[in-house]
This record gives sequence, structure tokens and C-alpha cells, in this order.
Amino acid sequence: MRPSVFFYLTYALCVCLGLLCLLFVTYWNSHWRGGFSWDGSALQFNWHPVLMVSGLVVLYGNAAVVYRAPFTWKQKKNTWKLVHAGLMLLALLLSILGLCAVFDFHSGSHIPDLYSLHSWVGICTVVMFTFQWVLGLAGFLFPCSTTWFRSTLKPVHVWMGKAILVLSLTSCISGINEKLLLTLNGSSGEPYNSLPEEAKFANSLGILTVAFGLVVFGILSRNKWQRPDTDSESVHLLLNEDNT
Amino acid sequence: MRPSVFFYLTYALCVCLGLLCLLFVTYWNSHWRGGFSWDGSALQFNWHPVLMVSGLVVLYGNAAVVYRAPFTWKQKKNTWKLVHAGLMLLALLLSILGLCAVFDFHSGSHIPDLYSLHSWVGICTVVMFTFQWVLGLAGFLFPCSTTWFRSTLKPVHVWMGKAILVLSLTSCISGINEKLLLTLNGSSGEPYNSLPEEAKFANSLGILTVAFGLVVFGILSRNKWQRPDTDSESVHLLLNEDNT
Repeated sequence: MRPSVFFYLTYALCVCLGLLCLLFVTYWNSHWRGGFSWDGSALQFNWHPVLMVSGLVVLYGNAAVVYRAPFTWKQKKNTWKLVHAGLMLLALLLSILGLCAVFDFHSGSHIPDLYSLHSWVGICTVVMFTFQWVLGLAGFLFPCSTTWFRSTLKPVHVWMGKAILVLSLTSCISGINEKLLLTLNGSSGEPYNSLPEEAKFANSLGILTVAFGLVVFGILSRNKWQRPDTDSESVHLLLNEDNT
Repeated sequence: MRPSVFFYLTYALCVCLGLLCLLFVTYWNSHWRGGFSWDGSALQFNWHPVLMVSGLVVLYGNAAVVYRAPFTWKQKKNTWKLVHAGLMLLALLLSILGLCAVFDFHSGSHIPDLYSLHSWVGICTVVMFTFQWVLGLAGFLFPCSTTWFRSTLKPVHVWMGKAILVLSLTSCISGINEKLLLTLNGSSGEPYNSLPEEAKFANSLGILTVAFGLVVFGILSRNKWQRPDTDSESVHLLLNEDNT
């Protein structure tokens, strides 16, 4: 199979899993958790999982693999740097909005902030993501950035990018688990350990989220799918190799 | 700084974080959770976090980076393959023992198995780890394995190795969070959201576990620290480069 065909098949799987994650998280919160609002109530909290899964996992994952699509390799790297930075900014803004949703809900319901391990890992994720975005902007998009700074920053940026994805997945899984433990065990309905329909559905959302993350890792790990250096000759060589 | 010095400094950080994880998880369960036993009681459950953090995270992480130490590059690859496979087998056995601890406790206390998202992700992790170990043995240690099979398996083995680490971290964080939610909120003492001493300590264990995992990812991501192919000339070249 041609490498680019294998890439696009894997990327199609990544997109399908991402769309399923969005569908599942939205359906869970609208069907079982009462829907959405922005009034400090539990309905405002419902934005939190939707925005975190959308921003911190699905959009983040897609933004991370944007350089890997072979059709972008012949195009200017700067254009794709802007696409990458723009998608990452959108992912960051959705995540910050997701944090506002939970802080507002806590404030309205007199629940302390940042007590659980989920919230500790979650806040570290968003802080690290913000730091990574600002550093990436300064290093790779500001014209005054030196070559030395860029080449030093690149491996750190790549490692931090993967680290943020690990933290995002960890935060999302512990968050879904926490929400189910608190709501199902705290209600008069069936407890979590009797595995009612909602629990099965939200657990499946968790598995889909992890599967999406692992496919993104798969794409990022494959050296053959790395965008070649901007040297046009090597791009040409790689694309020709792909056509053989 | 010489690349090997930077490697050993990073590896020292990895070892320190790993030891801190073991210390924290043991102290948490002996000081706040009543210690250990193997009698189907809550004291048997306490082996679960200790064995999972030890096997699935700390030992697994160390076994994953064993090829990266430059001092091993001049030695026979087969020796280090056996060390890698041996450490991984020990990590797998500790994880399976950790699962026995929780299943026995559930059985003794009439708690259903495998209902939470933590348990779904956890069981996937151990199943994937077992599959990876058996496949690794068949592909890389059995003399009858073909060169084609080895070269096809290698990128899959590398990706699955990272995927198992992501799943392990996700399982551990959601597990610590779940344990604190169930025990602190279900007891007559201070609830989780008032952040008692135990919660602060166990949350810190979670952060240390994630930090350990991210350092392991850092070591695995750095191409310069990859063991060169068994071709002795390239090893010689790399080691000389390191000495300049």
C-alpha cells in the first residue's frame, strides 16, 4: 500500500473517532444530564465535558497531526504553521471556556474548586498548553526568533505536544469517571456499580476518547509521515518515492 | 553538555520520580488505608494501587527506556532484549497480581467487577500489555521469526509500547481519583472536597506518577538517544561523536 494511502486511511479513522467523541459527549450531557445553559447551574457544568473533549482532545489531536498530511508537504511551511497555531488557539480557547463553565458552576453551588486529582491534572494540562502555545508563537512565528532558539525549542515543543495530549487524555478519563461516581451514586436512581445505560454510554465515550488519542499517537510516532525539512529537493524525493 | 551526560541526568530524574511514586503509594496505603493483607478485605485491596503503580508504571517505564542507556550500545543487543523482556514480564506479573487483589476484594465484599471507566481502561491496558509481550516474544526473541515479520512488527511494537504507557497513566490517575472519591466521601471523616491531608498526599502521588510518565516519554521521544542499529560501525560513529 502506498504510504500516503495508509496515512489517509489512518487519518480517516482519527476523524471518525473524533466525530464519535463529539457526538457521544454531547448526547450524554443533553440526554442524561439535562442539556445546556450558562446560568451557574448544573446545566452550565454540562458544557465542561463537551468543551474539554472538543478542545483539549479532538481539536488538539487534529491540530497536532496537520503537518503529517502528504498533500501539505509541497506547500509553504509557514501557511501550515499558521493553520497549526490557529487550530491550537481555538482548542485552547475552548478549553479555557470549559474551565469557566466548571468554575462558574462551583461558585453558584458553593463547591470548592480544584480539590480532586482530576482537577489538579486538568489545570496542569491547560497551564502547560498555554505555555506551549505562547512559546511556540515566540519561537516559530515571530520573525525576530533566532535559528538557534528555533532548533533548541523544536524537540522541547514536540515532547511537550505529546505530553499535553497524555495529560488531556488522563484528565478526560478521570473527569468522566468522577462525574459518573458523583452523579450516579449521589442520585436516587441506579448506582454506578449496577452499570445503568448512562454509565455504559459514558464509559464508551471514555474508551472512544482514549482510542482517538492512541490513533493520534500512532500518526505522530511514524517517522515516514513526518513532514520533510523545507528543503524542496527532499520533499520532491519523498513524494516521488511515494509514487513508486 | 555531552549527550550521554544529559541522558544520565534525565534518567536519574526518571529513577528519582519512580522511587518517589513507590514511596508515596506505599505510605498512602499503609498510613491512611490501614496497611496490607491478603484476605479478601479492604486491606487486600490496598495491594492494588501499590502493585499497579509499581508494575504498570514504574517498572514498565524503566523497562521501556533500557535500550537508551549509551553504555548498553556496545554490548550485544540480544542481552538487552532479554533484560527488556524480563523486566516487562515482571511488570506484567505485578499488574496481574494487582488485578487479583482487586477482584478478590470485590468478591469478598460483593462489589461488582469492571463497572467504572477506570476499570474498563485498566483492563484494556493489561490485555494490551499481555498481547504486546507475547507478540514481542514471538517476533523478537524466537529464532524462527522471519526478518520480514520483525521489521513489520517493530513500528507496531514501538507504538503499542507508548500506547500502553498512556493507558497505564490514565488508569492510575482515574483509579487514585476514584479511590479518594469513594473512601473519603463514604467515610465519617472529612470529605474529598475539603482536601484533607490524605487527599493532598494522594493527589501528589498522582502528579508524581504523571511526571514520571512524561519523563519516560521525553526519553523515548529523543531520536539522539535511540540505540543505533546493530551495525557495529554506526555504534562506533555515534559513540565517538558523543566523545567530541
